[in-house]
Amino acid sequence: MPSIHKTQQWQNLELHWQTLAATNLRELFTGDSHRFVRMQLSAAGIFLDYSKNLLNEDTLPLLLDLAQVADVQGWIKRMYAGEAINITENRAVLHVALRNRSPRQFLVNGNDVMPQVRSVLERMEKFTKQVRSGAWYGYSGKAITDVVNIGIGGSNLGPLMVTRALGHYHDGPQVHFVSNVDGTHLVETLQGLNPATTLFIIASKTFTTQETLTNAITARNWLLAACGDPAAIAQHFVAISTATAEVKRFGINPANMFEFWDWVGGRYSLWSAIGLPIAVAIGMPRFYELLDGAYAMDNHFETAALAENLPVVMALISIWYVNFAKFATQAVLPYDQYLRYLPAYLQQLDMESNGKRVTKNGDAVGYLTGPVVWGSAGTDGQHAFYQLIHQGTQTIPCDFIIPIHSHNPASDHHLKLLANCLAQTEALMLGKTLEESKAELLAQGRSANEVEMLAPHRTFPGNRPTNTLLVEKFTPFTLGALLALYEHKVFVQGVIWNVNSFDQWGVELGKQLAGVILPELKTGTPQLHHDASTLGLIERIIKHRA
Amino acid sequence: MPSIHKTQQWQNLELHWQTLAATNLRELFTGDSHRFVRMQLSAAGIFLDYSKNLLNEDTLPLLLDLAQVADVQGWIKRMYAGEAINITENRAVLHVALRNRSPRQFLVNGNDVMPQVRSVLERMEKFTKQVRSGAWYGYSGKAITDVVNIGIGGSNLGPLMVTRALGHYHDGPQVHFVSNVDGTHLVETLQGLNPATTLFIIASKTFTTQETLTNAITARNWLLAACGDPAAIAQHFVAISTATAEVKRFGINPANMFEFWDWVGGRYSLWSAIGLPIAVAIGMPRFYELLDGAYAMDNHFETAALAENLPVVMALISIWYVNFAKFATQAVLPYDQYLRYLPAYLQQLDMESNGKRVTKNGDAVGYLTGPVVWGSAGTDGQHAFYQLIHQGTQTIPCDFIIPIHSHNPASDHHLKLLANCLAQTEALMLGKTLEESKAELLAQGRSANEVEMLAPHRTFPGNRPTNTLLVEKFTPFTLGALLALYEHKVFVQGVIWNVNSFDQWGVELGKQLAGVILPELKTGTPQLHHDASTLGLIERIIKHRA
Repeated sequence: MPSIHKTQQWQNLELHWQTLAATNLRELFTGDSHRFVRMQLSAAGIFLDYSKNLLNEDTLPLLLDLAQVADVQGWIKRMYAGEAINITENRAVLHVALRNRSPRQFLVNGNDVMPQVRSVLERMEKFTKQVRSGAWYGYSGKAITDVVNIGIGGSNLGPLMVTRALGHYHDGPQVHFVSNVDGTHLVETLQGLNPATTLFIIASKTFTTQETLTNAITARNWLLAACGDPAAIAQHFVAISTATAEVKRFGINPANMFEFWDWVGGRYSLWSAIGLPIAVAIGMPRFYELLDGAYAMDNHFETAALAENLPVVMALISIWYVNFAKFATQAVLPYDQYLRYLPAYLQQLDMESNGKRVTKNGDAVGYLTGPVVWGSAGTDGQHAFYQLIHQGTQTIPCDFIIPIHSHNPASDHHLKLLANCLAQTEALMLGKTLEESKAELLAQGRSANEVEMLAPHRTFPGNRPTNTLLVEKFTPFTLGALLALYEHKVFVQGVIWNVNSFDQWGVELGKQLAGVILPELKTGTPQLHHDASTLGLIERIIKHRA
Repeated sequence: MPSIHKTQQWQNLELHWQTLAATNLRELFTGDSHRFVRMQLSAAGIFLDYSKNLLNEDTLPLLLDLAQVADVQGWIKRMYAGEAINITENRAVLHVALRNRSPRQFLVNGNDVMPQVRSVLERMEKFTKQVRSGAWYGYSGKAITDVVNIGIGGSNLGPLMVTRALGHYHDGPQVHFVSNVDGTHLVETLQGLNPATTLFIIASKTFTTQETLTNAITARNWLLAACGDPAAIAQHFVAISTATAEVKRFGINPANMFEFWDWVGGRYSLWSAIGLPIAVAIGMPRFYELLDGAYAMDNHFETAALAENLPVVMALISIWYVNFAKFATQAVLPYDQYLRYLPAYLQQLDMESNGKRVTKNGDAVGYLTGPVVWGSAGTDGQHAFYQLIHQGTQTIPCDFIIPIHSHNPASDHHLKLLANCLAQTEALMLGKTLEESKAELLAQGRSANEVEMLAPHRTFPGNRPTNTLLVEKFTPFTLGALLALYEHKVFVQGVIWNVNSFDQWGVELGKQLAGVILPELKTGTPQLHHDASTLGLIERIIKHRA
């Protein structure tokens, strides 16, 4: 197959962009009264309105042609079949197996992984029941009041985001998350915690991740400083890992090691044992509902025609903006305070998966890949960076996400939240013309001079594209569906870009070089091979720490 | 004056970019052994290494020519002179007066504002002493244990960020921040708080901001549900506002209203009474140190030659990347867990100030303005989005910010943090060539086939530009200096782009349209004038809420 950007389908889209660039959303809506009805999809409790995008009736068909030529359907099949589609690590990619709630088998090298998956879920259930009921106790015989998850990257952001997103359902012990190697993170977290009632979950596949082990050892010292007895470690530490020997050496009882597998990528792992802190917080029945929601979306993704496939359509719209409109970033704007960590989570999911510059074959891509994904919870963003989205010189496609019902329906807060969310998508699309702006100022009684001066500043170009995602309420089920939706969206984009969305070699070089610099800082002896800047900084730090 | 992009200076830079695009950082370092020494600056306790940027010895002089033709020095003078440089609102811009720690006068319309500034600082001092000492008490006679700041945008992000950034110095009552109109934000915050010992700070200049007032009223109901006596409101609510009548009507004693002025923009206001929650947390002496640090940077900014002026040089490097290299985003990466809100704060500061599309004269700008500013605390980002920064198809200039000393020097955590920070800047600059990657894989004993297949994926293009900012330790002083540095940087960029960095008309349209939609949701009666998407969403929400 030729590189995707050499295909006729790609070139059709490049040409087609010229048409769209010459029109605008106001016109598109005026010209088509059925637009809203035609450009919407629902699956697994999620409703998507994608009509406020820079698409006409020809765009999606052309994008679907591209999906066809990139063999999106074939790659979905390959993923489900357990093929080693993570080619640089020679691994299958089967996070869908983690939430498979049917008798179906998932095969890796001919072996069904489902018995292992179910066995770990059962062990998680037993463990969380003990912790949540008070049957698990610390060295002084007291129940656990606080759980501290120590992990980084996928072993942190996923469980952190979901635990907070389901804060309304949180009826277990307090759950804290420590990730940064900065001593401040752990020290500030442990302040006010009682070693006798604190349980640590150490999440590291290899049990050698520098940040995680550094924090775990300091946490162990904190426990031992309080109780003195190394036997207590087994009561206060459990592991999510595959490295039995390392885990045992740390002092953890291997019976309290929860396994996951090399076919689970870090950023796709919250559905596995990595989700243990979630299950401690909300209980296993609700963790299963989270899996149920993801499973519902998985089924939709696997079976729906591409044109009605929520993750596929969202992926194609993203591709449209990255490669043809050349928009560099995309924003995620959840109108739900519980979902405040969602933008950071999706930032990792998307940018670590598709921030790649070579194809699966190792050739340089000849086109842009993953955009910068960013955002924050609304309405806060409205009073911060929305200025640039409305009136800046870049176009930033936005996903607005909002539940119809709030878990905390105090007074009219939620109606205001809904009104703001809808108004933003309306404002971004419509804008306000110079003439409208002038008329408004005149109506306010401003002088002709003032009107002339102010109107350009109060004009909005509009034509800013948005998706709106509605759910009834953010339950474990709908959250699971939403996350699976974005996982599959990112996968489809990676398929079209022909990159491996499941490795992350880009994190290795920094680790390697940090391993060189650390002993230099420790001994106070810089090596001269560094560039002048790095050397100069090392010397300055050594001098100032002396 | 012609538009800035029509000047010779701008065109020189466009031409000059071709030279830089044809070289790379490795070469630039090899070719110039004095690069690190020449490309560094210090002021007010902040050390900047800017040598790892895509600059040669001609670049900064050419950028300084641009600063000259844009009259940066003249605009600095105009700001300090209290001229109404916020032209669309006809206001002076004098956040520098808020931290003026000298006998100097700052004039607005011929009147020195310093007596007012000092008077409010004195009132803040008296108030915070009372709250912190327990002399201020609630309706049942108990001291205040928790302070809840209710504000949004500049009335939230600044105080929130600084309060957390100075967490090490936090010895006053607990301080919470509620901003989002989402009822969840307030409800979850109040859970576990005691009305008898909770004090609310309501921060809203006009006392009409929808989010803030909605939250304030729900908070007042919460208090009244507990104590029943409206007279208690005055003991549990204070205001940061200028709207005496509204404040009084709410039930707040006007003696407990802290004023600020129209020459203080929301995103530049943490130095004013808006900083009250900071002062409650750390005490006024340390709040003064924060002002001292900003004042030291202000003096540097006002007096240093442009070529040695930290905010000016950082601004010019940003301009270089936005307008000549066409990099769409810039990342802020604080290696300090206390500074975890800094990226969100700078995102607002930068994007709300310079996310503009018309010049001061109201003409469309013919060039790009404010970039998307984003980031997170390191080392977490390393395990999330750094993949794209290292190996993606976009170049993202990054500011690395790190203290030489930690407030929590547990074990070797901080040396590891430092090693990681330096290693990232080294890795981003150097990259790893295909040949280096192959040699490494061969040395690991990989087969020739594996080497061929894997090496391209493990290659790093390098040549990714970074700034490194070092401080001794993040004290109130150095934090104040850092924030003033970025404020002035943003200002200089705005001067060169010839935009008004001090208004935010872009937030108005959404507010206006939300005001239309809210009654439709409340009455269940949508108006038909909306576009089909907005109307369809409103109808769907009404139906599902019925």
